[in-house]
Amino acid sequence: MSMIPHANGSADDTTGADLRSWVEGADGSGFCIQHLPYGVFTKADRSPRVGVAIGDAILDLAAVAAAGGFADAVPDAQALFATDRLNPFMAAGPSVWQATRARVSRLLRAGAPDAHRAAAEALIPRSETTMRMPFEVADYVDFFSSLDHASNAGRLLRPGAATLSPNWRHLPVGYHGRAGTVVPSGTPVIRPHGQRRPPGAEAPVCGPSRRLDVELEVGFVIGPPSTLGGPVPIEHVGEHIFGIALVNDWSARDIQGWESQPLGPFLGKSFATSVSVWVTPLAALEPFRVPGPVQEPPVLDYLRTDHPWGLDLCLEIGLRSPGMVAGGAPHDVISRTGFAGMYWTMAQQLAHATVNGASVRTGDLFASGTVSGPVRGSEGCLLELTRAGREPLPLSDGSTRAFLEDGDEVVLRGSCGGNGRPHLELGEVHGKVMAR
Amino acid sequence: MSMIPHANGSADDTTGADLRSWVEGADGSGFCIQHLPYGVFTKADRSPRVGVAIGDAILDLAAVAAAGGFADAVPDAQALFATDRLNPFMAAGPSVWQATRARVSRLLRAGAPDAHRAAAEALIPRSETTMRMPFEVADYVDFFSSLDHASNAGRLLRPGAATLSPNWRHLPVGYHGRAGTVVPSGTPVIRPHGQRRPPGAEAPVCGPSRRLDVELEVGFVIGPPSTLGGPVPIEHVGEHIFGIALVNDWSARDIQGWESQPLGPFLGKSFATSVSVWVTPLAALEPFRVPGPVQEPPVLDYLRTDHPWGLDLCLEIGLRSPGMVAGGAPHDVISRTGFAGMYWTMAQQLAHATVNGASVRTGDLFASGTVSGPVRGSEGCLLELTRAGREPLPLSDGSTRAFLEDGDEVVLRGSCGGNGRPHLELGEVHGKVMAR
Repeated sequence: MSMIPHANGSADDTTGADLRSWVEGADGSGFCIQHLPYGVFTKADRSPRVGVAIGDAILDLAAVAAAGGFADAVPDAQALFATDRLNPFMAAGPSVWQATRARVSRLLRAGAPDAHRAAAEALIPRSETTMRMPFEVADYVDFFSSLDHASNAGRLLRPGAATLSPNWRHLPVGYHGRAGTVVPSGTPVIRPHGQRRPPGAEAPVCGPSRRLDVELEVGFVIGPPSTLGGPVPIEHVGEHIFGIALVNDWSARDIQGWESQPLGPFLGKSFATSVSVWVTPLAALEPFRVPGPVQEPPVLDYLRTDHPWGLDLCLEIGLRSPGMVAGGAPHDVISRTGFAGMYWTMAQQLAHATVNGASVRTGDLFASGTVSGPVRGSEGCLLELTRAGREPLPLSDGSTRAFLEDGDEVVLRGSCGGNGRPHLELGEVHGKVMAR
Repeated sequence: MSMIPHANGSADDTTGADLRSWVEGADGSGFCIQHLPYGVFTKADRSPRVGVAIGDAILDLAAVAAAGGFADAVPDAQALFATDRLNPFMAAGPSVWQATRARVSRLLRAGAPDAHRAAAEALIPRSETTMRMPFEVADYVDFFSSLDHASNAGRLLRPGAATLSPNWRHLPVGYHGRAGTVVPSGTPVIRPHGQRRPPGAEAPVCGPSRRLDVELEVGFVIGPPSTLGGPVPIEHVGEHIFGIALVNDWSARDIQGWESQPLGPFLGKSFATSVSVWVTPLAALEPFRVPGPVQEPPVLDYLRTDHPWGLDLCLEIGLRSPGMVAGGAPHDVISRTGFAGMYWTMAQQLAHATVNGASVRTGDLFASGTVSGPVRGSEGCLLELTRAGREPLPLSDGSTRAFLEDGDEVVLRGSCGGNGRPHLELGEVHGKVMAR
């Protein structure tokens, strides 16, 4: 396996717990110097460029490049960073990612006065910026990799059938979603219309979805492409995975339920998928890698690896109703769950998705599927949290929710570390539901 | 509805049966002056550009533009045609398509000596060119719109279940495929590997697919994008549909059969999808439009239109085994079918795909699903032609085929007209199966 090379304790160590930043407020924040996620931003009427989040600020990598800050480290830095998408940088591959991260880490590290002066001019308060879609999505694939979610969904959506399909423990079930409707955090989500068949009815009706749901997911993004006709062996997946983002795979359960046989979800998903505007590089996640779960029965050879491709992330869903907005109340946290227990890992997902010879391209987004845990309150979607709407959730404003209502604001959050280790917060995914 | 405007008998009529071209061999060929399909080609080491097929030649639209041939008719013609993809031209919309087609038709029309001289310099023998992927695919959607195919597939793949799912007559069932593995005609298809579960076995095995199949389909390509959050009403679909191409949606039936529950096809399809290198504009198909079939039960309002969105195309599948290649024999035609009877039309497919608010982008490819007819020999895939492999097809070299073997060459052909009307041949789709 090719993990991102880094040497603990060396000058190129970017994840050490003892690293501190000179940027005010960075230490102890989710965007600490051990994190350094990438995004694309604009400031006033300037053209978009690539930046790194640090505390409440963004380091403008195009400005760093223009000032010669990547000289001798990152070839063609202007072309990689003075642009409106991460794709060129993602395509450049692990050695460029590593060189960039090492240089950025040194620029932002406490105790380097020269670097401090050089970087200060390229630092912009986040409040003065607007974030954009961080990368152009090539293909979007959504998996179904949580055992608890797959089991719960099977019971709720296909009562009477086997809870898990016979293939589920042998391969990471997945399908293609709509790349063209992947939107950045903050984009309003307009309630989809479509066909649904009311309970007991013979014929469908068409109208606004009545069962609009969230799906709490973690996605990974492809850097260098692979070649058509051959697989990406599981030992090599790390050469292609740039980083991760939170994903809200909004779902209209009534549309999905009516349309999905025999070819799977289509319009119940294709209206919108939201991703965080910050992409956390794999390198930042090295300290939080954990072994994947024991898989029984054993999986086929092409899905086997001894390397720790699980990720110890804490995830949560926040929901803020119009009543809570009116009362100035924050989000209710309606689910808290963990990513470490996902049955299928990113490495297995990528090895599987290419075993047939399908190639991947820079910007391909592979999402985990809904992340659900085994206990009440750890389910990653309302379908499960409310038992298909039969047990609505009480909210702090006195209202209840079976599914999303117009005006509801949803936020997905993810974090790792803490308890003496650096604490990283993934970019949030916000979205407000609006009527058409 | 917005059909491409054209006035029969006027100078802008591009489909009249009496039109003749001065280009030798064009009249009576499938690339006659009434056709004028678009593609992207290179010649020697020159950069790619957009061209129009006429007889055995290509009219280089970038050269026409450089010589001022689109002056006063097509703004920014250089930007549209001196490029490696049809996307800018497709995005320009119906008025630009119409102006371009009218100008090209006049340049190539018999009886216009000045135009003849101007165009002759931009005419290149096809034998001196190499064709490229004609457009960059944004999202790829595959439908399931043939009643005969859906019925046959239901019987063969899901014996014991209802032949048609309950939704089938209410909406055009579809799903997203992999845009990144759509390849131009002529690209070899490397036999996919993957998981399949042998009959009677408990556990799957991984290896080369043993049930590699073709799917004969017709796709349409999107020009101008639509807006996220709102539908494309069926009366407006013609403003977004640029043209059509033949599609071979190669399928590994054994991989597909094992993986598809509950979320639909994934690796059984994602290894390759072939499209013709020539895109036939809707304007060329005006004379061949026919009413869609009677739909019973009646469909919901958003799927209703009085306009004739059926297309009277003849389609066929050719298969050439290694034995036939060795003997110098041509393809066997293993299926002949028609497109006019498809249950769901392009217009309904696009209206449905956007009813939920999903937007379309320039380059989106929507394929029909396998085109099958009601009689033996009119099925659009081997699964149906051979009754899931139980009745192998005899070939002219004495061999038989249940599914594709390494070395097999497949060609899809499509045509319309004849019998006194102009005869158009769609761009063919070739592909040779190769072992990994």
